Amino acid sequence: MELTHFDSSGNARMVDVSEKNITHRVAIACGKILIDKLAFDALTHNTVKKGDVLTVATTAGVMGIKKNSELIPMCHNISITHASITWDVNDCALPDGRYEIACMSKVECDGKTGVEMEALTGVSIALLTVYDMLKAIDKKMIIKDIYLKEKDGGKSGHIENIV
Amino acid sequence: MELTHFDSSGNARMVDVSEKNITHRVAIACGKILIDKLAFDALTHNTVKKGDVLTVATTAGVMGIKKNSELIPMCHNISITHASITWDVNDCALPDGRYEIACMSKVECDGKTGVEMEALTGVSIALLTVYDMLKAIDKKMIIKDIYLKEKDGGKSGHIENIV
Amino acid sequence: MELTHFDSSGNARMVDVSEKNITHRVAIACGKILIDKLAFDALTHNTVKKGDVLTVATTAGVMGIKKNSELIPMCHNISITHASITWDVNDCALPDGRYEIACMSKVECDGKTGVEMEALTGVSIALLTVYDMLKAIDKKMIIKDIYLKEKDGGKSGHIENIV
Amino acid sequence: MELTHFDSSGNARMVDVSEKNITHRVAIACGKILIDKLAFDALTHNTVKKGDVLTVATTAGVMGIKKNSELIPMCHNISITHASITWDVNDCALPDGRYEIACMSKVECDGKTGVEMEALTGVSIALLTVYDMLKAIDKKMIIKDIYLKEKDGGKSGHIENIV
Amino acid sequence: MELTHFDSSGNARMVDVSEKNITHRVAIACGKILIDKLAFDALTHNTVKKGDVLTVATTAGVMGIKKNSELIPMCHNISITHASITWDVNDCALPDGRYEIACMSKVECDGKTGVEMEALTGVSIALLTVYDMLKAIDKKMIIKDIYLKEKDGGKSGHIENIV
Amino acid sequence: MELTHFDSSGNARMVDVSEKNITHRVAIACGKILIDKLAFDALTHNTVKKGDVLTVATTAGVMGIKKNSELIPMCHNISITHASITWDVNDCALPDGRYEIACMSKVECDGKTGVEMEALTGVSIALLTVYDMLKAIDKKMIIKDIYLKEKDGGKSGHIENIV
Repeated sequence: MELTHFDSSGNARMVDVSEKNITHRVAIACGKILIDKLAFDALTHNTVKKGDVLTVATTAGVMGIKKNSELIPMCHNISITHASITWDVNDCALPDGRYEIACMSKVECDGKTGVEMEALTGVSIALLTVYDMLKAIDKKMIIKDIYLKEKDGGKSGHIENIV
Repeated sequence: MELTHFDSSGNARMVDVSEKNITHRVAIACGKILIDKLAFDALTHNTVKKGDVLTVATTAGVMGIKKNSELIPMCHNISITHASITWDVNDCALPDGRYEIACMSKVECDGKTGVEMEALTGVSIALLTVYDMLKAIDKKMIIKDIYLKEKDGGKSGHIENIV
Repeated sequence: MELTHFDSSGNARMVDVSEKNITHRVAIACGKILIDKLAFDALTHNTVKKGDVLTVATTAGVMGIKKNSELIPMCHNISITHASITWDVNDCALPDGRYEIACMSKVECDGKTGVEMEALTGVSIALLTVYDMLKAIDKKMIIKDIYLKEKDGGKSGHIENIV
Repeated sequence: MELTHFDSSGNARMVDVSEKNITHRVAIACGKILIDKLAFDALTHNTVKKGDVLTVATTAGVMGIKKNSELIPMCHNISITHASITWDVNDCALPDGRYEIACMSKVECDGKTGVEMEALTGVSIALLTVYDMLKAIDKKMIIKDIYLKEKDGGKSGHIENIV
Repeated sequence: MELTHFDSSGNARMVDVSEKNITHRVAIACGKILIDKLAFDALTHNTVKKGDVLTVATTAGVMGIKKNSELIPMCHNISITHASITWDVNDCALPDGRYEIACMSKVECDGKTGVEMEALTGVSIALLTVYDMLKAIDKKMIIKDIYLKEKDGGKSGHIENIV
Repeated sequence: MELTHFDSSGNARMVDVSEKNITHRVAIACGKILIDKLAFDALTHNTVKKGDVLTVATTAGVMGIKKNSELIPMCHNISITHASITWDVNDCALPDGRYEIACMSKVECDGKTGVEMEALTGVSIALLTVYDMLKAIDKKMIIKDIYLKEKDGGKSGHIENIV
């Protein structure tokens, strides 16, 4: 099977999408971070204050979505029509005592190429920002399960993944 | 427990490191991506050619390390003295038939603050780049287990994590 | 009244403009900087030379216009069709002996969302650049009255502000 | 009086600071935005929610501080040791019915050149972000009085400005 | 003859392309670097390994193409539909014993303005990257003959240059 | 001979400079662009106006110097203490009727690694900017002979090249 990001001589390239159709495209990506109880308490206690961890991380995630084509070498730069980051903070600890903060990124555009990398990069940057803001408390956090949940528009049509 | 990235009124901020000592600091972060057999074959077959997936991803990872303070809002901008991305490609499939590509990032500096976020961001961008270059083949890839493996220098001394 | 940059759960987001029409959009923003006589003399004397303050500031302003969506978190990245920075240097001192350097930025695009933030950011960066280049002479400069002077295109039609 | 940002032939340049001493440097800059009652209500009502305007603007301001040398052509790139954005939201309307949101930026470094431009750029970007997030409600906002409030370190010693 | 990048008062500006037609546009640029025998041996010996100089340089070139409008002040930011960097490594030494590594960049878009600067910037960054990676070996390398080889689309139609 | 930008397994990396000494480092790079008579007249006629081609190009060049480590993948990010771009515009045409605009970039830092790439990138971006601003007039320009003229500081001491 051919890698579309290389030409026949093996040179890396941005795929030529000139001939593709402009369609409305949507991508939703997910990921999560596991944090300990102290970090969880700081995170949730903090949300009632003026500044809070998840708003900073949401901001970073949305900016990361827009920075995607600067970070991932062969991605096209795309005019995005919508970008959002949402969170699911579960109050119940996992069996090992850790808490799971889930992040979801949704990106839309009208273009010739999809926005799944934008969504995946957005989730990654948002989760890394949570990590940064809690790392003074918990030094054993882990970011897990970053994947494409849903995708629509373009040649491959609707795709939905379950992890 | 206090969140160091907020002041007493709850405003987000970059932590004041003016009074900290300049020490040599090292951070090593890890992560992995799971890919199917077709993607694995394309990846490994491709490495004998002039252009290859892992070199592009390594390049993106090193550039991502340097971009860290632009991406993670409260991170300090730091003069990095060393940055590398290395890979561990396992030829044996997992029980579910997937293959695991592991990535490791090592970053060093002489400064007043650590480089763990640089290392974690480097791994994330490198793995996202692998995702991008294989996504035409495998639409169910998943990025997993991004964490800080080792850290040295600064107040908290040597830290080592096992996942 | 609702803030369009937040969803119903309070998450910050880029507004969804997917359904909006593509129209030609224009925005004009203004601002000014007050400088003392020594700084004014250096600025105006300098304009006959090869390198001059206002050309550097114009260049920075045009580049700032293009960087807008990287700086303002919830702004869309837009393909701009025209960007300019112009200046009005008044030879008459104000009653307090200061001189006023006025800056105007005009930005145009064909898109689904307006360019007022681009114009406002352009003026801000251009004025900050003047500040930077004169700050060795005048340490009491002040940037004032950055506002949207005119806007056209899109749902809200023609808008004109007077300060 | 000479402009330090030009050489004797009139070429723009970054001032040579190689011979300057490394000292601890602090700069504090201020600015404000005037908004109408509807915008003020939306801003203050919103602060009790998870996502809020001033946290997004604080995040943008801190990131803007770090981006300063990319925006202002002749500024040095500096390793910043501390950066913060704080706000003063006044509940009393001005005589014209508008409300004043004041912003203050504090930046520190140990270096050969000051951080006043970083502080001024931080305030500007933070205020522009407030503008962006309220512009759907109030189309007549104005950003005013961006200036250097205080500066310490380096050859010119302690400077304090009053507007 | 008028410089389109200045208005009638001499202010630099991005040319107004609002009224131009959207057409498919292609640009091809070339350039080369001359290196000594030791550097040539290192470059060509290295290409059979996992990481190689030309893949890193290709990656940098493609990313440079996308960064063009951030680097060249009056260039429009454009959604690129295709970008590639290819190489021509000549095994025969020149009469002075040096070897010539030629680089070609091809860029395409559907837009109101051409992509020749994108192609020229891509070649420049790719060649500078080769320089960087070989400079520990050869301290006398030289980059030569960066020019626009071919251009298509837009008002001026097909253009082809020979050097 | 070994390529320092790759480890023993062939992974690209930023060279580890942790153990190197901090010394004052200087690099001077040169390059030129050949333009036809019409372009030359526009360039030189324009220099007496408020906005001029070479000031815009100087500004772009200085900003390009600071952007070097973002563009060239394996370059260290360095705090630069001085950066300048100067020009040599020769009034005499070459035998083929073209005119030569020479550009020189000088960069200094106190650090563990040299600034030759910063100087070379600065010259390249400055010359590309001249190209951009004259390309409506002359479609056959060529950028030539970008090389390191002089270098000082660090292990290899003083180096001087002649082309």
